[in-house]
Order: sequence, then structure tokens, then C-alpha cells
Amino acid sequence: MAGNSIGQLFKVTTFGESHGPAIGGIVDGCPPGMHLTADDLQLDLDRRKPGTSRYTTARREEDQVKILSGVFEDTTTGASIGLLIENTDQRSQDYSNIKDLFRPGHADYTYWHKFGIRDYRGGGRSSARETAVRVAAGSIAKKYLKEHCGIDIRAYLAQLGPVKAEKLNWDEVENNPFFCPDPDKIAALDEYMRQLKKDGDSVGARVNVVATGMPVGLGEPVFDRLDADIAHAMMSINAVKAVEIGDGFAVVEQRGSTDRDELTPEGFSSNHAGGTLGGISSGQDVKVSIALKPTSSISIPGKSINVDGDVVDIVTKGRHDPCVGIRAVPIAEAMLAIVLMDHLLRHRAQNAGVSVHTPDIANANR
Amino acid sequence: MAGNSIGQLFKVTTFGESHGPAIGGIVDGCPPGMHLTADDLQLDLDRRKPGTSRYTTARREEDQVKILSGVFEDTTTGASIGLLIENTDQRSQDYSNIKDLFRPGHADYTYWHKFGIRDYRGGGRSSARETAVRVAAGSIAKKYLKEHCGIDIRAYLAQLGPVKAEKLNWDEVENNPFFCPDPDKIAALDEYMRQLKKDGDSVGARVNVVATGMPVGLGEPVFDRLDADIAHAMMSINAVKAVEIGDGFAVVEQRGSTDRDELTPEGFSSNHAGGTLGGISSGQDVKVSIALKPTSSISIPGKSINVDGDVVDIVTKGRHDPCVGIRAVPIAEAMLAIVLMDHLLRHRAQNAGVSVHTPDIANANR
Amino acid sequence: MAGNSIGQLFKVTTFGESHGPAIGGIVDGCPPGMHLTADDLQLDLDRRKPGTSRYTTARREEDQVKILSGVFEDTTTGASIGLLIENTDQRSQDYSNIKDLFRPGHADYTYWHKFGIRDYRGGGRSSARETAVRVAAGSIAKKYLKEHCGIDIRAYLAQLGPVKAEKLNWDEVENNPFFCPDPDKIAALDEYMRQLKKDGDSVGARVNVVATGMPVGLGEPVFDRLDADIAHAMMSINAVKAVEIGDGFAVVEQRGSTDRDELTPEGFSSNHAGGTLGGISSGQDVKVSIALKPTSSISIPGKSINVDGDVVDIVTKGRHDPCVGIRAVPIAEAMLAIVLMDHLLRHRAQNAGVSVHTPDIANANR
Amino acid sequence: MAGNSIGQLFKVTTFGESHGPAIGGIVDGCPPGMHLTADDLQLDLDRRKPGTSRYTTARREEDQVKILSGVFEDTTTGASIGLLIENTDQRSQDYSNIKDLFRPGHADYTYWHKFGIRDYRGGGRSSARETAVRVAAGSIAKKYLKEHCGIDIRAYLAQLGPVKAEKLNWDEVENNPFFCPDPDKIAALDEYMRQLKKDGDSVGARVNVVATGMPVGLGEPVFDRLDADIAHAMMSINAVKAVEIGDGFAVVEQRGSTDRDELTPEGFSSNHAGGTLGGISSGQDVKVSIALKPTSSISIPGKSINVDGDVVDIVTKGRHDPCVGIRAVPIAEAMLAIVLMDHLLRHRAQNAGVSVHTPDIANANR
Repeated sequence: MAGNSIGQLFKVTTFGESHGPAIGGIVDGCPPGMHLTADDLQLDLDRRKPGTSRYTTARREEDQVKILSGVFEDTTTGASIGLLIENTDQRSQDYSNIKDLFRPGHADYTYWHKFGIRDYRGGGRSSARETAVRVAAGSIAKKYLKEHCGIDIRAYLAQLGPVKAEKLNWDEVENNPFFCPDPDKIAALDEYMRQLKKDGDSVGARVNVVATGMPVGLGEPVFDRLDADIAHAMMSINAVKAVEIGDGFAVVEQRGSTDRDELTPEGFSSNHAGGTLGGISSGQDVKVSIALKPTSSISIPGKSINVDGDVVDIVTKGRHDPCVGIRAVPIAEAMLAIVLMDHLLRHRAQNAGVSVHTPDIANANR
Repeated sequence: MAGNSIGQLFKVTTFGESHGPAIGGIVDGCPPGMHLTADDLQLDLDRRKPGTSRYTTARREEDQVKILSGVFEDTTTGASIGLLIENTDQRSQDYSNIKDLFRPGHADYTYWHKFGIRDYRGGGRSSARETAVRVAAGSIAKKYLKEHCGIDIRAYLAQLGPVKAEKLNWDEVENNPFFCPDPDKIAALDEYMRQLKKDGDSVGARVNVVATGMPVGLGEPVFDRLDADIAHAMMSINAVKAVEIGDGFAVVEQRGSTDRDELTPEGFSSNHAGGTLGGISSGQDVKVSIALKPTSSISIPGKSINVDGDVVDIVTKGRHDPCVGIRAVPIAEAMLAIVLMDHLLRHRAQNAGVSVHTPDIANANR
Repeated sequence: MAGNSIGQLFKVTTFGESHGPAIGGIVDGCPPGMHLTADDLQLDLDRRKPGTSRYTTARREEDQVKILSGVFEDTTTGASIGLLIENTDQRSQDYSNIKDLFRPGHADYTYWHKFGIRDYRGGGRSSARETAVRVAAGSIAKKYLKEHCGIDIRAYLAQLGPVKAEKLNWDEVENNPFFCPDPDKIAALDEYMRQLKKDGDSVGARVNVVATGMPVGLGEPVFDRLDADIAHAMMSINAVKAVEIGDGFAVVEQRGSTDRDELTPEGFSSNHAGGTLGGISSGQDVKVSIALKPTSSISIPGKSINVDGDVVDIVTKGRHDPCVGIRAVPIAEAMLAIVLMDHLLRHRAQNAGVSVHTPDIANANR
Repeated sequence: MAGNSIGQLFKVTTFGESHGPAIGGIVDGCPPGMHLTADDLQLDLDRRKPGTSRYTTARREEDQVKILSGVFEDTTTGASIGLLIENTDQRSQDYSNIKDLFRPGHADYTYWHKFGIRDYRGGGRSSARETAVRVAAGSIAKKYLKEHCGIDIRAYLAQLGPVKAEKLNWDEVENNPFFCPDPDKIAALDEYMRQLKKDGDSVGARVNVVATGMPVGLGEPVFDRLDADIAHAMMSINAVKAVEIGDGFAVVEQRGSTDRDELTPEGFSSNHAGGTLGGISSGQDVKVSIALKPTSSISIPGKSINVDGDVVDIVTKGRHDPCVGIRAVPIAEAMLAIVLMDHLLRHRAQNAGVSVHTPDIANANR
């Protein structure tokens, strides 16, 4: 594999399966001298944690993270940071019945054919459980970006099935179990999710992520553009099927006279671009939107085949989220943080010694 | 700055500016023993070449590629392949007037602030001229994938402004200057583009890319997923603002009972996923869709600022494509080819010695 | 940092400090389908383990390794392998007295200046304790190379201070606490080490590593040559100051008529090159020799300065090896195994589909 | 392959064969704003150039380098720098006779078996001609290190066969065709080389490289140590068989009480370590020594086999250096410069924002 790391200077490598003894990871490249404790990571982990509301899986994981290295007397040393989260609520017997089946929409079929062997318990390595480590690692990046650079990264649920958020009230996001920024849609979401559970079905979602306080200059032409690396990071999240920067697919029908973000002495007059020009951050807010597919783990029976190619009926009985998009909110924040942190370090390296022009105007119109 | 390569085992590194003496690149990792001549690359280069129709820029570049190494007696040797394309139609005087201005929607502003210096002639390094090297490099990958693995990679213009292709007739794609697969829309496209030029404006586009003949197993969990690497490669193309795999953003409103692609002994019963499950190719067709923004190089005057922060009027007088999406068709093919080639080699490395199960069913329902 | 991984396809990433709660690592790229248990790794860990003889440090670490992921029912799955070794015998109070001092010959001074902070307990991240993870990871590579490719990797102590091994008896290597292959030198080594401990001093050593059963073709021109990657891996071991391949420095005085290894139908007539030609394995034995400096942790008082620049006296009172070269034997094996494994996978990737010529003659004269 | 690049932030990728139309490369990561022209590179290229004295090959290459990108108005822009050197004096007919033979000591045998095909003209990709690109790329790094950081990198011939330099007079190095720093040994070298040519034989050499003006802190634990990356870079040079840092193999017989470099308020009291502690630069001079084997291209007949395994006689008739070690002097400088430049950028990235302690004492005793 060796496809298990993300980032070049700020690098995150993970391990662990859904039903193994533990999951964890290594964070390389965190600058020395930052105050850091496990509590800093726990905050975001708790936001992602299963079992916190009726709308997510009933699996209960404490998701208690331990920092095993790289921090001395609550301060980062510049050495690699080892992270460990023990799995406490595995019920592997739940999965013995799918041992020889390929669940539709899951990675069972592809893992089986790629590796010739498959840890069938809860999706094994392909389980979204792995994203807990991303959230922990991303918290380190988020903390550094916020405290040392003034960059703030936040996400919210923009749409769940047919229910769209129409207001963006950041304060509301953490006040409801959906991470929905529109207080007027909470009731509709609640009702929709209740019906969904009754139906035994699942639904897709759209999550938006925004970085404010951006400096100008992050992103490396011509392949490691900031937007390209963001697309990579977002699409590496389980269930994500699409990524937009700025206006995204809306540009297909736009004209240049509309789409171009004019510059004024007070700043950009609009932000169609979503914060990057030529793959480099412009100082405007970075705006990313992603689509998450509905999980295939539903209780409505479906057809599939087993390893022998015989037809089988599939009913998922495990404990699953009817909308994985909800818990994707802190994951999307983590992935954007990891990418921005990596590019911050890369930019600093390459421009050390250069007198960079003061990008005052970028501060306007984010 | 060291963000200038793509791929791990099949690696492409490029250099060159719009108005320098030449552009070029190095392709590492092409397996030895493949028949290859410059003519193989020229075919795709000619499809991307400017000046071939009234709908693209009037700049005339021969885009004649030379292979400088890695090929001996028309056969690849396994050594790095050096590629060179001389710039023949630079008119740098066209650009002296924008020397101190930041064109809206271009990388002028970000390059200036990132690097503290800017080759203002035709966008310098940020020019789409650089994509010619990608097309040449991608042709090598396309040839190998087709001849040695039976994988076919093709793209088409799915939408240009308000005009959508409604039929997918592959034979039609190369028969019109728009790479449009719907013969009934050629007239509408022609009319729309004529009006657009009269307006002095530009427009966005959607390009779809499809790989057929896919094997099962390409993609490396959990970060270098096939879809994640595709998203990275596509978003690294100039002007691309969004990427979808399979149903893309449509999944937001889908339910799991619809979205899951059921398996039958004859193959998958649908392909909502777009050819990947858990980030690994399923053997189904890989389906990618991208959005390209309208170029900001238009003759409708706009506002901007210069390096001193003063307000200036901008009118682009250079020779530009009113819809850069058209010429993006061969570029998108090239990028998908580079990613698939890289993952083919990576998969081979890692599964050498493993008896892989025969994925017969994947051959159905592509 | 992000300088914390080695290998490209078979990649090892480590974390952990001498006196933290645990050390560990992640091994990516182990092919699926190999039988593997913690016992396989424990064998080599026990060879490296401190406290096994009077000649090494009195620190007692169980060095019990746990495999946390990537192995399912005692078989590798192709997923990343998480490794954890808890630190059980830290006595951090031993180090409080050196908190503000720079021990000569140690990394105290450079870590302090590089990172601006230093985990002073036992060397922190710069401690040789970290090599335990390398040994565990290397065991995985060694096992695969041996069982799946017939490649055998072994090392021995070639010289300790003035005492040189003159016979190479592989069976003897594991029969004495020095990993010395010459049974006639065990008494001399014992006597030398006793005197060294009395003197409170330390001494350097030379370790030789040999890989037999090599295939032709490992190594990637022109920078990732096999010998270059071996040199990197060996020099990354604590205390190593020199690396030779084949005849090494002896070639300075050799003539081409002697040094060239002639080929005969029965094989190479000699192996001055040490198993690589043009950076690619020739099928002959790979022969590597390294020099390890004497540890600076000795009880003979020395001069140094503290963080304020004041002169201080240094006497190391911790529990240290008088010759770190002895325990370097399994470490050197591990590093060679990691490099060969990585290059085996890389070679397979790139030459898949090529009909490779049968290198029969390489089997002779190893 | 994809083993064709060196460096992570300052990255050099090369292409080209001995008898192709051209060799060249791409340098990524050169900071913007540095004055640079082709003349800057030509200086070092001329030092490496063949045909400059009777002691090197009679092949005459102008080695005229062109900068194709990344430099605008004689200033680096931060974009990738394309380099091109045309081959002007290829005489491929010289090599037709070795088409089916494996020259002993060359890469013929290994390339043939690795790739299944071989560009036999002058060694193809394995030719030392490729090092011209390294020298050009290294010159860029040398210039930056010298002008922006005060780091000076110089090398010299320390030994040629039995003739050892005993004085280190830097001014002398460029005054004789051997890069020998000892004026008293020029006559002996001249005599030895004349006899060597008469004998039709070749000889090995030792080259020493020194970096002065070093900052503290370059090198990334635990694998990308500065010394490990130097070892990699040096061993990647054609014909190099051994690398030492500081005292190198002499440490085998040293005791800790001697080897440890004590610190005083005025600086280190010695430099056994060669400028690195724990893989991080200490501010002392970096001291590297390498061994180059005698070329196998000699006119003394030897035995070998052809591709069919038949015995053949080999006499090399091409134009070759009797001691490749001489021209390795600028190559070794280039490789050290590339490594230091890369680590300078990496260090800057990672410690941005950290208040680094002033390492005054490092300035003493280099």
C-alpha cells in the first residue's frame, strides 16, 4: 500500500481496523513549542464520536485519545506525535454473517479482489472508524493554524437529503445534533431522520467547509495546488463523491464577466473562486463543498453475491448511521486543516528570505 | 517549488512558461519495452493545440514534441523520458501593458504575493500552456494502458454554458471542434460561441471523462484512494473548480436503497459509484466529471488594481479561448491516464505474489 | 520534521521517546497473505534487547511488541501494520541532572538549537531506543524476503576496537553475546570489554551485513540506486559514521584490471562490487560494512557547557552500552531488509509485463 | 522507475543518455528572487567537462547549459528551472561492438536484466555523462547557500591510487588538473597518471568535501538525518563505493573519551563527528569523504560473456578517464550542495515561528 499518509511536511499516517484492538496514527511535522494536551484533541473527537445522538449509530466508543510521544511537559517538541485510540465497543459477532458476502456499496468486493483477503469485521480497514484518527490529527493542525496564524476552520451540514440549510448562523452549528447552521431547519431534519430510521433507509448529505483568516500564498504550482490538495483530502474521506471549490459546478453556466472576482483597493469585490487563484490562496476565505453518499448499511433487504458468485440477500443489522454526512462535519474540518497546515509549512520553506509584499487587500471581502 | 510532480511510480514533472523558449517535462516510471515515437504523442497534442478552429485562441503553436531520452530504437528503455516542446509563437509585447496590473480571475495577484516576482508574459508559469506537457506525458500512459491492459480513456464536452449534450455518441466526439458527443447540439454550440465572441465574453464548461476496461483493485487505502488521486489530478488542471466521481453531487438527495449498486452473478446492476468502492476500482467504468470556469481574459472592460494598489481598467487584448473547457478534453484524458497508470504500477508492486481472485463479474455492466 | 519515514512502497514510520509511555510505528506496504504473528518480530527484538548480557546496558526492557492492525487471523491483509512497544523501565530521575547540560557527542546540543525545546530524558527522540521499532519492522521485511524470495539477511560484529574477527563462521554468530563470527576471538572480546567497563570508557565497532539469494534488478537509477538507499538507511542508524559497499574504501588504491568483476558462463569471478552494478543488484551477495562510533555516555569525566554557556563537568551515570556496535547487529539487518523489501516491490511494479531474462549466472559466486 | 529525483523541497530530476540528443533536468524549489544566469552554472560545468586535460577522456563536450524556465530577467521566479545540455560529440559507432556484450564492472549486465532492453551506446542512462546535469543543478544550490547563507562548499582529491595529499591548501585545488590541494604531490600525480595510461589501466580515488559556514539545525530525525541524506547523495554518484562522515571508519578503534567532541564556551574542542550530532548539523564544518572505484573501461583485455552466455574477450576502445575520481570533485560538491539546500528549506519550514537559540559557540572551531 504505502498510500496511507497525507501531507508532505505536515504528514499524517494512520493505522487500524474497526474491530482490532486499537486505531492510531503518527503526526509528523508539527512545529515545536506549541502547547498541546490530549484534551485539545478530545474536543473534536467528541464531536465525531458515535452514539451521541439518536441520529447516529448506537455503537458507543469512548474514543479516548492518548498522546504517546512528541509532547514533553505539555509542549510539542518537533518529534513525531504518536496517537492511540483503543477500540472498546467491538461486537465482531455482528459481522460473522457477512463473512463471505459482498455488501453492495461497501468496499468488501474491492478489498477482497485487491488483497485476496479481507477483515470482514465492520469493514476492517475500510471502516469510517479510521476517520477518528484524522480528526485527532486535524485538531493539532487546527490548533496551530488558529493560535499561530489566525486561521479558523469550520464546517456545517449544508443539506441532508431534500432539506437544505438556507441561513448560515455559525453559532447555531454546535447547538444541534446535525451541525446545521439554520435554526429553522432543525425540526425538518429531526422529522426527516425519524422517518428515515423507520424506513430502514439512509440518505446523502452536503457538507461545507470554510477557512477564514487565510494568508496569501499557500499552494505550490503546478500539481500541488492548494485546491488540488484540498480535493484529494476531501475525496479521501469515506463516502465522499464530489468536491467543489468556490462556485464549483455553477461555473459551467457562468460567463467570465460574472465569474471574475474584480479587485479594488479595498479588496476583492466577490469570491466566486473560493479563495484560490492559480492554485494559490488569495487571502479570501477558502470555501469547499462536498457530497457524501448515503451509507449502504441499511435494513431494507438487497441483492448481492457471495465469494462463490451465488446470489444472496443482504440485510444490514449492525449499528450504523442513517446519514454519515452528519458526523463528516468534524472530519471535513480536520482534512482541510491538515492540507492548510502542510501548505503553510511548505510556503514558509520556500519563501524564507524573500521580502513578501503585504497583501492588505486580501483581508477585505472574505 | 517542489509541487511540480504528479504520481509516485509513474511520475510526471514539468517546466516552462508561456513565453519562455520552451516547455517540457520528464516522465519517470514508464515500463520498458513499449513501442513509442514522438508521433504517438503528437496525436493528442494536436487535439489540444491552439489555433485549430475559430472557437479557440488565434495563437498558433506547432506544439511539436521531441523525445530526448528514455526511448532507444523506438522502444522505451525504462529510463526517464525527457520531453521538449519549443514555444514558437510568443508575442511578449502583447503583455507589457499588464506588467504592473493584476488581472482579475488570473494568478497574477497570487503569484506576485507568493513569490515576490512575476513573469507577467502570458501568465508565465500559471499559463495553461503548461498543459501541453501534461497531454504529451498522458499520451504515454494512455498508450500503455490501452495496449497492455485494455483500458481505454476518453473524454467529451458534456456542457458549455447553457448547452448540454444529451446523447453520448463517442464517434461524434472527434468529428466536431467542440468534442461534443451529441450531433444535435453542434449547431447550437456554434451559434452560442459566435455570439460569445461578439460579446467579448467567455463561458464555463463541463467535461466528462470515462475509463473503460478497468481492472479491479487500483487505489491504495486510506489516503491515496483512486478517487482521491483522480480528484487531485483533475483539480490541478487550470480553471477546474469541481470534480465528481459517479453520481457526484446527486448523491446528496439519494437514499441508500437507490444509491447502492447491487451485485449479481452477471455483474453490478448499476454504476452510481462511478467505478470505485472504498477508493479502489471495482472493474466498472470510472466516471469523472469536472467543471471549468470561464476564462477571465475577456474584452469586456473590468476593474482591478495595480501593484501600487491604484484602481485600473482592464481589457484583455491577447489571443484567448472564449471557452477553455473545449481544449480541456484531451487534458482531462491525460490526467486520468497518468493517475490510472500510477495506480496500475502501485497495485502490481503490492500484490505481486498474491493469487488474486478472478473478477469476472466486474466485466459486466460497465 | 516529516523526515520520519523510510521507504517508498514498503514504508516504515516511527514514533516514541526513550522515556515516554511507549514507542511504536506503522509499516505500510507489506503484501497481503503472509503469515505473521508478534512472535515473529519478538525473535529479533530479543536479540537487540538491552539487559541480556553483562556487555550491554543494565536497563531492562521487555520490548514486548504488539501488532495492533494489518493482521487478521495471523495473516497480513495489506493494510497498514501498527506496532506498539511499551516502555517499562524508564527511570527519568536519572536524567534530571543533565536537564540543562549538553552532553558531548550526543544530540542534546543540536536538538536544543533546532527545536528550541528538548526532552532531556535519556536522549528523548534521539535515543537509540527508537531502533527497537526498526528491528520489529525489519523483521516483517526479513520474513517476507526469506519466505517468498529466498533472500537471507544476516549481520555480524566484524571488529570491536582493536579486536577483529578473522573467521566468518555464521553458526557462531548467535552463540556468543557479541554476534562475533570468529570463535577464536570471543575470549579476547570478553577481556577487552571487562577492561573497558573498568576504565569507564566505550569503544567503536564495525558491523558487516550480507544479503544472500539476491535477484538481479533491484535499484532504481539514477538517484534511488540500491547502494545509495542502503547508504541512507545505514547512516540513519544512531552512531553510524561510515558505510561501505563491497570493497569500499579499498577501491581507492585498486586498479581497474583488479577491481572489475569479470563475468564467466558460471557466474562472476569475484565480488569486489558488493552486489551492485550501476546501482542495481547483480544477483551477487550484497555486502555492506558500517562503522559505529563509541558512545559518549561514559563515566570518565568530561567538559561541556550548559544552556547558559557556562563550563560544566559531565559524568554519565545512566545505564549505557560500552559498545553500542554490538546491539547494532540486528538493527543493521533490519535496515537492509527494509531497503531490499522496498526495492523488491518497486522493481516488481515497474517491470510487470516485461519478459525478464533469466539471470542464471548470477546464482554462482555469491 | 521514478527513482530519478533527489530532494524533497529542493528537488532535482534528470533525464538523458550518453549518446542521445541531449541531457537535462528540472530543479524545483529554488527560492524566488535570486540572480541567476547560465554563466553561473557554466563555471562548475567547465570544471567537470571532459577533454580539458590529458588526464581525462578525450571526448570533447561543450557542455553548454541552457536555462529554459524559472528565470525571468536574470532572476529566479520560484517556478521550476528547466536545464538542457545538448550532446555534441557522440560517436555511437564506437559502441556497436559491445552491443551484445556485458562489460565487466559496468551496468550493462544489470540494466539488461532489469529492463530487458539496453541502450548500449556509451552506457546509456548509466553513463557518468548524466552527472553534468547534477553539476548544473548543484551550482544553483551552491550559489544560494553561499550568497544567502554564507555556506561554502568545496571538494578536493584526497588520494589517487597510492598518492595521498598531505597538505590542504585550498588555493592550490583549482591550480592543477587533479583538484589536488597539496602542491608537493602534483608531480607524483602527473607521473602516476602517465604510467597508468601507458599501462592501459585505471585507478581509484578518494575525494573529500567540506561545507563551512554551517548553521545549526539542518537534518530531520529519525530517517532523513543530514548525514543519512548526504550518504545517499554521495553513494548515488557513479563509481562511489564508500562514504564517511567526520572520522568515518577510524571510529571503530576509537574510545568514547577520545571521540566525543567536548564543548567549551568558545566552541567545540574538536570535530571528530564531522559536523553532525544525532543527524542534525552542529554548526561545525560538515566533512565528507568518498571512495570512487577505478573505471572498468580499460584497454587491458578482460573476460566476459555476451547475452547468449558465451565467453568473449573485452577491450574497451572508447575515450575514457583513467581516473574518474578527478572529475568527481565538482560532482561531489554539487551533491552536497543539493542536500544542504534541501535541508535548509526543510528546517526553515518546520521551525518558522520558533525562537531559535543563538548558537554562537558553533562558529568557533570549525
